[in-house]
Amino acid sequence: MNQINNIILPEPTLRRLPWYLAYVETLQKNDVEFVSSTQISRALSVDASQIAKDLSFLNIRGKTRIGYEVAALAEGLSEFLGFSQCHRAYMIGCGSLGEALIRDSGLSKYGLEIVAGFDVNPQVVSRTDLGVPIYHIDRIYEIMEENPASIGILAVPSEMAQESADIAIGAGVKAIWNFTPYRVKVAEGIVMANTSIYAHLALIFNRLNSMER
Amino acid sequence: MNQINNIILPEPTLRRLPWYLAYVETLQKNDVEFVSSTQISRALSVDASQIAKDLSFLNIRGKTRIGYEVAALAEGLSEFLGFSQCHRAYMIGCGSLGEALIRDSGLSKYGLEIVAGFDVNPQVVSRTDLGVPIYHIDRIYEIMEENPASIGILAVPSEMAQESADIAIGAGVKAIWNFTPYRVKVAEGIVMANTSIYAHLALIFNRLNSMER
Repeated sequence: MNQINNIILPEPTLRRLPWYLAYVETLQKNDVEFVSSTQISRALSVDASQIAKDLSFLNIRGKTRIGYEVAALAEGLSEFLGFSQCHRAYMIGCGSLGEALIRDSGLSKYGLEIVAGFDVNPQVVSRTDLGVPIYHIDRIYEIMEENPASIGILAVPSEMAQESADIAIGAGVKAIWNFTPYRVKVAEGIVMANTSIYAHLALIFNRLNSMER
Repeated sequence: MNQINNIILPEPTLRRLPWYLAYVETLQKNDVEFVSSTQISRALSVDASQIAKDLSFLNIRGKTRIGYEVAALAEGLSEFLGFSQCHRAYMIGCGSLGEALIRDSGLSKYGLEIVAGFDVNPQVVSRTDLGVPIYHIDRIYEIMEENPASIGILAVPSEMAQESADIAIGAGVKAIWNFTPYRVKVAEGIVMANTSIYAHLALIFNRLNSMER
């Protein structure tokens, strides 16, 4: 599996593969055994040839007339996407959103284990009720030795986003998952993903307002 | 302001405007009074002419040699993006992620007020500790009369995503903000935004794995 995992996949493929996984998991829960790319295509409005191409990255091929075996496809997708492995992460900023993400047990089902949190607020740093230890950000170098992590999840106020990312990367984090609306810059070689909650809110509000005309 | 709010903005502009807002709010906290598009351009790696074009939607224009007034720009952006208004939303699915989003007070700062939650699990429906009432999904029509909302935030298991969206839309919700990995389909005229947490995880894991080669 490691060899396959090492392919750098195009972003659009990485966007579509979780859709396929969610869909086949739904079929699995409904005891469906086989699915064709035509069925997946109809359900997700993705071209059937695109689906076959995306799935060929996994070395999974459907059988003529029968299609893909649902259980094998679900397992293959989950493993291929890294959701079956454990990836260790730090929560940088444990205020409202950071706390919410720490408490969201759903992330661990997708292979993300938050092993520690960091903050600057003494009242947050002293918290023991979040299920993971919370440290002052100054201790991140030391904690990286005893309890390392490769992913830094950024949930700090905007004005601290760049500095916090720099500190986490300095301490050894290899990927930044940015939940702040601030456009954080990272050096080449550092993985960067932005989850733009606020851009999505802006989109929803704008489209709703324009409907009210 | 209503007239301006009614413009349907292109998605890329709606993605960039929150970056500008986060940046100027950072300047504001540091008591900076004026900012030029060149400065914004350098900080965010967005073309200066693009910034001027994006901001022209707001009818905000910078002054020669001085640039934009930071406080006015922050207020204008926040208002234009709808973050200063209150938009009422239902949380559909109040499990781990739904609960986390209800608890995230950050959303209300950006104009999103979650006024009620819906679930099918009796243990969740009876909860009174979330700050908003949680109802059985069957009651959504009735609740829409007394405590209406225009946005449905979807945080249910994948296999219930489509059905839940259909119910919420049937009850009168005009926009679906989908946090599930399932690709939900909605009728034309319904606003749809996907926050693909799992696609971002897949991206991070894939890039990290390929670095380890």
